[in-house]
Amino acid sequence: MKATLNCDMGESFGLYSFGDDAAIMPHIGQANVACGFHGSDPGHMRRTVALAHSHGVSVGAHVSLPDLSGFGRREMQMDRQEMADIILYQIGALKGFLDASGMKLDYLKPHGALYGMAARQEHIAHAVADAAGVYDLPVMGLSGTLHERIYTERGLTFWAEFFADLDYDDEGRLIITRDHQAVDPALAAERCRRAVFEGLLTTVSGKHLPVRAETICIHSDTPNAVQIAQAVKAALGQ
Amino acid sequence: MKATLNCDMGESFGLYSFGDDAAIMPHIGQANVACGFHGSDPGHMRRTVALAHSHGVSVGAHVSLPDLSGFGRREMQMDRQEMADIILYQIGALKGFLDASGMKLDYLKPHGALYGMAARQEHIAHAVADAAGVYDLPVMGLSGTLHERIYTERGLTFWAEFFADLDYDDEGRLIITRDHQAVDPALAAERCRRAVFEGLLTTVSGKHLPVRAETICIHSDTPNAVQIAQAVKAALGQ
Amino acid sequence: MKATLNCDMGESFGLYSFGDDAAIMPHIGQANVACGFHGSDPGHMRRTVALAHSHGVSVGAHVSLPDLSGFGRREMQMDRQEMADIILYQIGALKGFLDASGMKLDYLKPHGALYGMAARQEHIAHAVADAAGVYDLPVMGLSGTLHERIYTERGLTFWAEFFADLDYDDEGRLIITRDHQAVDPALAAERCRRAVFEGLLTTVSGKHLPVRAETICIHSDTPNAVQIAQAVKAALGQ
Amino acid sequence: MKATLNCDMGESFGLYSFGDDAAIMPHIGQANVACGFHGSDPGHMRRTVALAHSHGVSVGAHVSLPDLSGFGRREMQMDRQEMADIILYQIGALKGFLDASGMKLDYLKPHGALYGMAARQEHIAHAVADAAGVYDLPVMGLSGTLHERIYTERGLTFWAEFFADLDYDDEGRLIITRDHQAVDPALAAERCRRAVFEGLLTTVSGKHLPVRAETICIHSDTPNAVQIAQAVKAALGQ
Repeated sequence: MKATLNCDMGESFGLYSFGDDAAIMPHIGQANVACGFHGSDPGHMRRTVALAHSHGVSVGAHVSLPDLSGFGRREMQMDRQEMADIILYQIGALKGFLDASGMKLDYLKPHGALYGMAARQEHIAHAVADAAGVYDLPVMGLSGTLHERIYTERGLTFWAEFFADLDYDDEGRLIITRDHQAVDPALAAERCRRAVFEGLLTTVSGKHLPVRAETICIHSDTPNAVQIAQAVKAALGQ
Repeated sequence: MKATLNCDMGESFGLYSFGDDAAIMPHIGQANVACGFHGSDPGHMRRTVALAHSHGVSVGAHVSLPDLSGFGRREMQMDRQEMADIILYQIGALKGFLDASGMKLDYLKPHGALYGMAARQEHIAHAVADAAGVYDLPVMGLSGTLHERIYTERGLTFWAEFFADLDYDDEGRLIITRDHQAVDPALAAERCRRAVFEGLLTTVSGKHLPVRAETICIHSDTPNAVQIAQAVKAALGQ
Repeated sequence: MKATLNCDMGESFGLYSFGDDAAIMPHIGQANVACGFHGSDPGHMRRTVALAHSHGVSVGAHVSLPDLSGFGRREMQMDRQEMADIILYQIGALKGFLDASGMKLDYLKPHGALYGMAARQEHIAHAVADAAGVYDLPVMGLSGTLHERIYTERGLTFWAEFFADLDYDDEGRLIITRDHQAVDPALAAERCRRAVFEGLLTTVSGKHLPVRAETICIHSDTPNAVQIAQAVKAALGQ
Repeated sequence: MKATLNCDMGESFGLYSFGDDAAIMPHIGQANVACGFHGSDPGHMRRTVALAHSHGVSVGAHVSLPDLSGFGRREMQMDRQEMADIILYQIGALKGFLDASGMKLDYLKPHGALYGMAARQEHIAHAVADAAGVYDLPVMGLSGTLHERIYTERGLTFWAEFFADLDYDDEGRLIITRDHQAVDPALAAERCRRAVFEGLLTTVSGKHLPVRAETICIHSDTPNAVQIAQAVKAALGQ
């Protein structure tokens, strides 16, 4: 019953900054590294891998729809094969920088709209599994959803993820937004404690639903991400 | 004294076709596979790797400047580090598809304007070597140039390349053009025979210069690429 | 009761060719000119406008989702405002080349997936109308659909379009595909004759439905597009 | 002898912010609006035009090489015709948003590496003039350079520009950098006063050279851009 903190890292692009990776990296255990399709570029990928390395943080490929101008937060209609190919391309690109640093790729996490699509569309969940299967990577996702079922049926390791800074609707579905708002660190920490130790989430209308939380996500563009990370870690006794 | 035929493969993009890969692949020994920066996309990379696999053709990463609209044939001013990062990203992406097919990456070839830049700009030759060095890949290039010197000083294997379908100026420099014209197959074959067996190239003005030819390139967008490949192979006794 | 032939023109991109514009242009009355978001680039836009000019063909802006790698044939989730902005950007860009040629922009046609989205999603139909309204452009669309209603409610001119080379399902909805297949020119011509003169379309299962056809579309990437154009013109007595 | 302040505006892209446009716009007279090729996107172009409108600021098209990942600050080898086409595309796109707001396009300013290329490469200066000529736009540039000569020979209005936050080398050439550093506002103001009222610039080594300053540029990504703008305005008695 030990959950890890994961955070989306390396989403800057060219001269554009995004998130305060240097401040957040010391507080997390898993860095979801962007691969250039919703954010990042080769230079930022190299630097993000180096930053994770210096803090002993595990690295996952944070793969996306091909949508830089929409930051991967707009759904796109994709075939299974083309989606799997797009994911594998990004995994491989990130592995290049990990190989150069003597590190290994530890897991896969679909980003933004792709994450939600994989939870609802069977052929997209299979596409994620197709690509993850090449390197037998664990995949992060929402517990109790279609993608958990498909990933595990395919023999992949599934890590149930809980979001510290997003809301859930009354069906337990994550409410994915294009912009992230500041969240009260104490409230976020309490939600995470409850999810990890009691297996419960609280929906927007106050309902309680069962949930699993093996890894906890904080977004780097949530304005007070560092404070949330610190509060959550304390609440989990880490 | 046995030269291999290499060809740029997999340069189609989305619905856009480029070159007749299926017709050319049976005639070559080395496929320079585009990695999405001047042409190709994840789907075409997967299909090109599969095609090379089915013909037992060796695969190299054909890496480019980030210039899809210019097909990588416009020079861009690049720093060493950013150029090395861009190349490593492409190498990694291609390795994803090779790993999925149980194949290995055999070499690196800079594409288009990057090829010429590496032959003339020391920091770009080093950038190519930086990226190639991660996987200790042999690199194709022009014999007697700055990039041969730098690659070999860096401990990389250098494969001297001769172009069957391009002209050379009187200093022995390749004349890189944005569009490729049809070339007389007999003429191309004779040039290749001479380069391989006599170590000589003929410049546009008719001068003879010493040259080495360990691998011979044919471009897939040269209109009669298949005929040239057949003629060259015959001239080399293959 | 005189229908015009329209065709998607100028969809080549960089070194990539798409469709035989030079062969088709003499046979059409309206050129839907791609604006760089699903195909084309500034150079091809200039050349396509010049080709239309030389044949006295009317020019419309063929605007798309921002999806070059998918040729604008994959649906994307878009807000009304961002969709309207993306369309207006493309309209303006095309007007640059028309202004340089002393020509005017005559109409707007959404491309590919955007065309179907505008027929089904109210906020997307409004986005198209928002952008068209800036220059009071007529808009092409499917008769009897949501977008006809919204465009006309907004005071825009609506041109009912019939597709010579695509199929319709039993609800009269266009079946949009990513690749276009050759179609029997005689069959296409007969369908167009019937649509224009009898106001009927035949669905894939053989049902007859009422339809309006004020303009008839042929895709330049349908393999026998020129033959279809000639057959349709003959059937319409033009 | 009245110089205007101009500033690069609207360079944010998707979720990425760049510069504090809202803080700077009240202090400037001319907004160089990015057109999507080095920064910006249709949504940010609309918002930037609206912001300029609300402050009564004149709008110019800030056109760039096609290099979003390099922010248009890497030189690229371009033909005259393709460069002119790329510029005209951007001008047209911006005019779409200006037309929607009932505003006019007042001038053209090449961005980043393109600015320097136009000052040194004759065919690029002509490409800028080709595109500007379509709408007879004034063009900003460096006094005493090749592009001043070519623009004026071509009958275009030339506005001599002085940079408040960049250095000049001993030949009077602007030193264009990829990142912009904070500059002492008092020093920048004194430089501008001297350029405008005394016609002199001070080079990095302390030499004084003659210069003309009809418009003064401040970059929005110079960290203290607002302070510089205020100091310069005060020094110019505005």
